Amino acid sequence: MLRTEVNELLTPTGPGTPGGQLFRRYWLPALLAEELPGNDSPPVRLKILSERLIAFRDSDGRYGLIDEFCAHRGVSLWFGNVRECGIRCAYHGWKYDVTGQCLEVPSAPEHNTFAGKVRLTSYPLVKVGDILWTYMGEPELRPGLPEFEFAQVAPEQTYTSKRWQESNWLQALEGGIDSSHVSWLHAGGLKSDPLFKGTKGNEYNVGDLKPFFEVAEADGALFVGARRNAEEGRYNWRITPWVMPSFTIVPPRGDHPVHGHFWVPIDDHNCWVYTFDYHPVRPLTPEERQAMKDGHGVHSRNIPGTYRPMENKDVDYLMDREAQRRGETFSGVRGIAQQDASLQESMGPIVDRTKERVVASDTGIIKARRKLRAAIEALPDEGVTPPGVDPAHHHVRSAAVVLPQEQSFIEACREDLTARPGVAHTSV
Amino acid sequence: MLRTEVNELLTPTGPGTPGGQLFRRYWLPALLAEELPGNDSPPVRLKILSERLIAFRDSDGRYGLIDEFCAHRGVSLWFGNVRECGIRCAYHGWKYDVTGQCLEVPSAPEHNTFAGKVRLTSYPLVKVGDILWTYMGEPELRPGLPEFEFAQVAPEQTYTSKRWQESNWLQALEGGIDSSHVSWLHAGGLKSDPLFKGTKGNEYNVGDLKPFFEVAEADGALFVGARRNAEEGRYNWRITPWVMPSFTIVPPRGDHPVHGHFWVPIDDHNCWVYTFDYHPVRPLTPEERQAMKDGHGVHSRNIPGTYRPMENKDVDYLMDREAQRRGETFSGVRGIAQQDASLQESMGPIVDRTKERVVASDTGIIKARRKLRAAIEALPDEGVTPPGVDPAHHHVRSAAVVLPQEQSFIEACREDLTARPGVAHTSV
Amino acid sequence: MLRTEVNELLTPTGPGTPGGQLFRRYWLPALLAEELPGNDSPPVRLKILSERLIAFRDSDGRYGLIDEFCAHRGVSLWFGNVRECGIRCAYHGWKYDVTGQCLEVPSAPEHNTFAGKVRLTSYPLVKVGDILWTYMGEPELRPGLPEFEFAQVAPEQTYTSKRWQESNWLQALEGGIDSSHVSWLHAGGLKSDPLFKGTKGNEYNVGDLKPFFEVAEADGALFVGARRNAEEGRYNWRITPWVMPSFTIVPPRGDHPVHGHFWVPIDDHNCWVYTFDYHPVRPLTPEERQAMKDGHGVHSRNIPGTYRPMENKDVDYLMDREAQRRGETFSGVRGIAQQDASLQESMGPIVDRTKERVVASDTGIIKARRKLRAAIEALPDEGVTPPGVDPAHHHVRSAAVVLPQEQSFIEACREDLTARPGVAHTSV
Repeated sequence: MLRTEVNELLTPTGPGTPGGQLFRRYWLPALLAEELPGNDSPPVRLKILSERLIAFRDSDGRYGLIDEFCAHRGVSLWFGNVRECGIRCAYHGWKYDVTGQCLEVPSAPEHNTFAGKVRLTSYPLVKVGDILWTYMGEPELRPGLPEFEFAQVAPEQTYTSKRWQESNWLQALEGGIDSSHVSWLHAGGLKSDPLFKGTKGNEYNVGDLKPFFEVAEADGALFVGARRNAEEGRYNWRITPWVMPSFTIVPPRGDHPVHGHFWVPIDDHNCWVYTFDYHPVRPLTPEERQAMKDGHGVHSRNIPGTYRPMENKDVDYLMDREAQRRGETFSGVRGIAQQDASLQESMGPIVDRTKERVVASDTGIIKARRKLRAAIEALPDEGVTPPGVDPAHHHVRSAAVVLPQEQSFIEACREDLTARPGVAHTSV
Repeated sequence: MLRTEVNELLTPTGPGTPGGQLFRRYWLPALLAEELPGNDSPPVRLKILSERLIAFRDSDGRYGLIDEFCAHRGVSLWFGNVRECGIRCAYHGWKYDVTGQCLEVPSAPEHNTFAGKVRLTSYPLVKVGDILWTYMGEPELRPGLPEFEFAQVAPEQTYTSKRWQESNWLQALEGGIDSSHVSWLHAGGLKSDPLFKGTKGNEYNVGDLKPFFEVAEADGALFVGARRNAEEGRYNWRITPWVMPSFTIVPPRGDHPVHGHFWVPIDDHNCWVYTFDYHPVRPLTPEERQAMKDGHGVHSRNIPGTYRPMENKDVDYLMDREAQRRGETFSGVRGIAQQDASLQESMGPIVDRTKERVVASDTGIIKARRKLRAAIEALPDEGVTPPGVDPAHHHVRSAAVVLPQEQSFIEACREDLTARPGVAHTSV
Repeated sequence: MLRTEVNELLTPTGPGTPGGQLFRRYWLPALLAEELPGNDSPPVRLKILSERLIAFRDSDGRYGLIDEFCAHRGVSLWFGNVRECGIRCAYHGWKYDVTGQCLEVPSAPEHNTFAGKVRLTSYPLVKVGDILWTYMGEPELRPGLPEFEFAQVAPEQTYTSKRWQESNWLQALEGGIDSSHVSWLHAGGLKSDPLFKGTKGNEYNVGDLKPFFEVAEADGALFVGARRNAEEGRYNWRITPWVMPSFTIVPPRGDHPVHGHFWVPIDDHNCWVYTFDYHPVRPLTPEERQAMKDGHGVHSRNIPGTYRPMENKDVDYLMDREAQRRGETFSGVRGIAQQDASLQESMGPIVDRTKERVVASDTGIIKARRKLRAAIEALPDEGVTPPGVDPAHHHVRSAAVVLPQEQSFIEACREDLTARPGVAHTSV
């Protein structure tokens, strides 16, 4: 359990909050690249860290992320026209460029001088992989661009989707580093999901329901190791990296692509979950890519034209008691992604952690909270850069291995847990 | 009118409120038995007295009513699996029995000892008649089970339905003991409803629109007598019993079954209305039973798969101005139940009783509030058991009689107002 | 920009607020006459200046506007029966007349005396033109009836519609006196709308995107003049009158009918927009009238059976990015009315005016706010009647003219800006 004041320290991320300060030190996913498919595409509204913003892509292909509201009278630029290297407010035609600089105030006779003095809040927006990333902190503290492997491999080797989750980001992230629920909540998926099934690793997963947890500390990350009994004298280790503040990779299964998530706060009661799947050394097959689009694996099946899952709160997650009774799903909800989300949303918008009863298998969660808290509390010390900011910290991988019982997972797997271009992931 | 502080004393029923303390001394309807039709049926979420709970029925047929949220990380047990004499949380498989006792914590190696220390809040859940009743107070103060006649007669003699009402329980209850609105709001129903029409009593009801009210006090109840002119030298009395805290019986009509309600707070702005219809000495006919299912009499016509009436707030109660103009309904709303509910909901979630102007025909309401208030104020005196707690107080009946003008209704009807197995109700 | 305390002075209009006191000095549109089409029509619920009221029309054709809730137990009179010169509450039959006087309390034996003492709040409701107007202030301060020209001409010369807008009234009104946005937001409508297109005035409108603003003060009004370059040595002036508190007329175009609005607060986050179109000297043609019904010009296309526009917030105003890209609409929203409303609603329920950056073309808005503020601050001085209360102040017109550059618009147009029965409006 956490004390109330710690829960209230870790969960909010709006401007001025301690957690918000922390998140504003990192590059974060702001959009999928597909949301701004061409130059002068329609602008996109978004909220991130409780700030309402407009993203657009100008005639020259430059991306911009600026305050949603026109500086003049406060109307939303979502109604604006994107053309001729800027976005023009629909009300009186004020025009802004991708940096938020006002270029024209047509209704004011003195507009040339005046416009120069008007500038909207803006943040950089940069495409790396299939994601448009932003950095919302002090410009002088802006770190190098993200170097996560899923966003660095060739386009044919990677796929990213996103979904809206109606809960605080932290309880969503906690699910991502909690390997112990897989054997229960996702037991059905291990058997039937095209992106999961048919591996030796699955047998270890369901063969030992009492994994032992060991957590290793790295510079920008934690490696959460879940140990299960394997063949005589050996252990199966499934290792989940968490890179600060909210990037996680699920341990791999056989030659299936590797998947993971980036959990991005929308506001204190909602988050975007960016979900990737990639293979370090080969293209995704057409069947794999189609399965991802269909919401298999850890992807979701979204309502067309939106990033909201079909299995959502308003429809009781399409609860199917018959499928649950037949054992096809453990919770009655279809799909691994929404099996997680439905439970995390059922905790309430921000779960009251003063009431929880954590156990040994929650070690990963406990250590992650401590690391977050330490990073937040170190922020006022200007000399300290939070873990995970340095792009070198992004070069991590998950791994699934079988080791002799006496061997330390972190020592045995140091190489396996490092992203190595051209080398396949370590998996069983 | 009531002073603000009295209104605020009588209406809330959450944990720790004075009214909540009072309600926690009684057995209350928690579910219809049909909601848990078999062993290992899907669990049911409910809120009662502002507490969120899960009801289930285990493999041996035992009923349980426990905290909705798992003790581990706080997810809803609504997603849980009911089997093997317990409910298992969908997240990590923690298992609880009907008493809330944790039986297994599978992910914790030390689970056997640990589980024994984990216990969720739980309340008894007992089937009496067609209802599952709960008692949410101190175990040592738990009274004997309910002995209301409608729940004691043979199954073929009784029928119970329920509906969600979007208002505080008290203004709903007040409608139940207010016999004077029948001649107005329900005038149409008296003529056409299959469970009301064709009795001598109806003629008295519409023949005298200015009933005189007299209220008699009993141990656990009030008897609200509405007196109307009948034949020369005689009065028609329609007598409504109210048993504390919120059980009422409508005065009968001819040989029609007798109906009444139990008004149960969900939270301060919503209540469940349990509606019963029974005949003390004969089975309900198939036609009567079908009429009840169709939402005639005081039952409602609910949206299939829910307990929400079709005539609800979101659809303006399906207001039919033409039927109102033709005089088929007085308020334009179909059905006696929703004629009441629509008006009571229109008062707002909790009506502001400082603005009302009560008159002589509101005597029943005024005396009921006084009795409630007295019971709430007596609670701190531990020697006093509130009226209506003793099952002996449940043995009441409504009655409709014609008496010589000089006769006291309460003296003349003492037997008629008592439940007497095998003896028909007294009715005109 | 405005200071927070000024924004909070000007925007709320509920009982007891300074702005509410001001609005309670004027006759305001309460309903369209079509909403109470005949004697004993169904009663209509409405909210105005944050007060919930019921309007009805009795058997003798008298209009009444009274408290929505019955004095007895507080149920809504919307369920009531209008007949026999009164409205009867559906619960216990209490009957009220159009003045709110209780006429009968049938359930109370002593009802004749008692009823005389019961009276609901009521306001006058008077038909002038196609509108039912009310006055919600002190009876002794009640001014003469409205004399706006659109409501005085013959029925065949005028048409009025209404729509619900989900924003505070002031930001809606500000759009009405802001002539500078027309060249941008409504550029498409100028070309294609049947009630706008084909006039010389439109050419001036789009030919000079930097209008110069000059505001002339009148007794109850402001005249906002927008000056654009016309032929050599001449200016085009488009003049918008604003009569206190919230009546505006759009400058005319050629021989098209003249249109304008009355912006009426529902509560602080919503307003009714009454929109009229009239021709001072000729009947509207069938084609014009049909175009108005179809939501052309400044009228809206409403969801049938309601006064809510089809292009509303819940459906993202039916945003059509393709029409926007093709330049048919500047903001992607269909129709001049909802082009305005969509932007004004996007500002939030009450726009934060501390963040705006007003420019010279906002002069009309700035002066209107000052005049409103002065009127509000003068209220405690009982000798002062606010501008616009005197019906003589209502005799205004908009105008569109071409003048020699050296001429003052207000001096040149004094006659043109005055309503003159039988004389056509001045227009280009």
